[in-house]
Amino acid sequence: MSTKNVIVIGAGGVGVITTLTLAKVGKANVHLVVRSDYKQVLENGYEIDSCDYGKLSNWKPQFVYSSITEASKSGKFFDYILVTTKNIPDGPESCTVHAMVQPLVESNYSIDSTKLTSVVLIQNGIDIEKELIARLGSSKYNVAFLSGIQLIGSSKIGPAKIKQIGRDQLTVGPFISSDKQAYTSAKHFIELYSNKDVNDVTFDMRVRYSRWKKLLYNAICATTATLVTLDTRSCYTLAPAVIDIENNYFRPAMQEIVRIAETENIILDSQLVDFFITSSRNSVHKPSMCLDKERGQLMELEVTLGNALRIAAEYQLEAPILTILYTLLSLEQAKVKKAKGLLK
Amino acid sequence: MSTKNVIVIGAGGVGVITTLTLAKVGKANVHLVVRSDYKQVLENGYEIDSCDYGKLSNWKPQFVYSSITEASKSGKFFDYILVTTKNIPDGPESCTVHAMVQPLVESNYSIDSTKLTSVVLIQNGIDIEKELIARLGSSKYNVAFLSGIQLIGSSKIGPAKIKQIGRDQLTVGPFISSDKQAYTSAKHFIELYSNKDVNDVTFDMRVRYSRWKKLLYNAICATTATLVTLDTRSCYTLAPAVIDIENNYFRPAMQEIVRIAETENIILDSQLVDFFITSSRNSVHKPSMCLDKERGQLMELEVTLGNALRIAAEYQLEAPILTILYTLLSLEQAKVKKAKGLLK
Repeated sequence: MSTKNVIVIGAGGVGVITTLTLAKVGKANVHLVVRSDYKQVLENGYEIDSCDYGKLSNWKPQFVYSSITEASKSGKFFDYILVTTKNIPDGPESCTVHAMVQPLVESNYSIDSTKLTSVVLIQNGIDIEKELIARLGSSKYNVAFLSGIQLIGSSKIGPAKIKQIGRDQLTVGPFISSDKQAYTSAKHFIELYSNKDVNDVTFDMRVRYSRWKKLLYNAICATTATLVTLDTRSCYTLAPAVIDIENNYFRPAMQEIVRIAETENIILDSQLVDFFITSSRNSVHKPSMCLDKERGQLMELEVTLGNALRIAAEYQLEAPILTILYTLLSLEQAKVKKAKGLLK
Repeated sequence: MSTKNVIVIGAGGVGVITTLTLAKVGKANVHLVVRSDYKQVLENGYEIDSCDYGKLSNWKPQFVYSSITEASKSGKFFDYILVTTKNIPDGPESCTVHAMVQPLVESNYSIDSTKLTSVVLIQNGIDIEKELIARLGSSKYNVAFLSGIQLIGSSKIGPAKIKQIGRDQLTVGPFISSDKQAYTSAKHFIELYSNKDVNDVTFDMRVRYSRWKKLLYNAICATTATLVTLDTRSCYTLAPAVIDIENNYFRPAMQEIVRIAETENIILDSQLVDFFITSSRNSVHKPSMCLDKERGQLMELEVTLGNALRIAAEYQLEAPILTILYTLLSLEQAKVKKAKGLLK
């Protein structure tokens, strides 16, 4: 079997460490699309301070492209297209996942229509694969859709400057559990990405479950902290005791997610709720959604709260706390859109 | 009948115009407690730009005190004690209404225990008189408790500098409708304060109704706009149409106030809800609560949302939207308290 080509879209804290990992493991040819920092990376490479790989200077990925268009014209077949950007379907059309992935799927297909392209979405949220499958799925192209859920404390702290403080933990699996091609492809990707004693890479047969689970944090703790511009720990410590924010707010809000997930026969048990209560009580970092708000960047609101509420609506299930959070955060999101000239 | 002494506590936009009005009408001796701007006011008076009274320079109230203590030692009997400060029961004890009023009630009582002292709270909120009546009411002192609800677009725009852009509209009435002394005193105060063709001063026999009515705006429109740092109009125009923020958020939230008021047999009819929907849709000014948040000042949260929810709790009435707004704004309030060193 020839060496696989893996291309990473999204050269932020997550994407660069993902690229570095693939390069360090050395079982694939690694390609990175670098937009804003392209010149710096080409000339001087990355400066990386990583808890997994130590300090690196002038580190350059094997192949660098300034745009997806450039990559799609490279003549290369990309076996894996990894998307590590934020997922903002309500943002500019050109930055939606399908708009980014489609040119590469098409160029792949024109190079060799018999070969499988695997698209791996290393992103938060629920239902993030739907639009992509609708556009690129079925038999039109030969594409497998993979889910990647990553825990990694990594940020871009300056142009071409990356700092990773949390060990890379990635779970990968097929979005559609019956999809055998995706199953095999996910297993193979884990081989390309696993780095014994350095990262934790596991196969995930229950992608949907894992994504609902993570929403207990992303749709509730992160959103609440974002609205009031705090870290999640402060949401507990600053709330007046009489409110009992854990039992009267956070737990009932998480139960709304639990009930929505139940409509899909996904059971998020009470220990999971306990786990996210404890971890949000202990986290002294502002959620990335909150940092986005502070920086005037669009937030991953639709793929977390928005999609969860759309599923609730299909089942006429009420989710009062999530609905209000979504309403208020939609206003924050609209402020950002207005400032960016994205409102009609 | 001798000329009455009226003392105003709270030398902000509201208090200074209130003082000016009493002086212009000229039927009372007017006293003002000026804390932060005392020296400037004593030396150069106020600079006032008022839609009701035009431009005034170096305007000085008849009597000025640097503190309530000083006023309480002046040997004067204050027939009316007007409180025009914000009402923040969860703020520093020395700034609570009862702490400000008590020294004057006591000095009055020691001067002449047979004479009536009228305390007029020109402030927002529900149940703001309760603590005061508990401490200074019954037969211990000789005090009448009056409610003042004011609509006036007036702000302090600099030290000793006041700008009033909205005509002064004040309704005054007894907090307890059966209190005949308060009834007579309110009627008399209206005589002292009415300025034909300049302000609108009316007697209010249904103080509780008026205060619940105003909560439709203060507990919902103002609080929501404050959370997302917007004017109320933008809350409608920026919300995605699919959310239908009017019908799915603002109206249900107002209905929660309607239902809480109903427990007291106070009927806020649907025209009132319509009125506040329309007026909040049209207002391009950030609510004063929002300006307080932006300036890092404590907000009137407890006398609006807090007290409304405490009444709801007494009747085991659920108010889910108000509860969440209160929870989130309690976090904002706690941030301000923390910054001011007011948290234990």
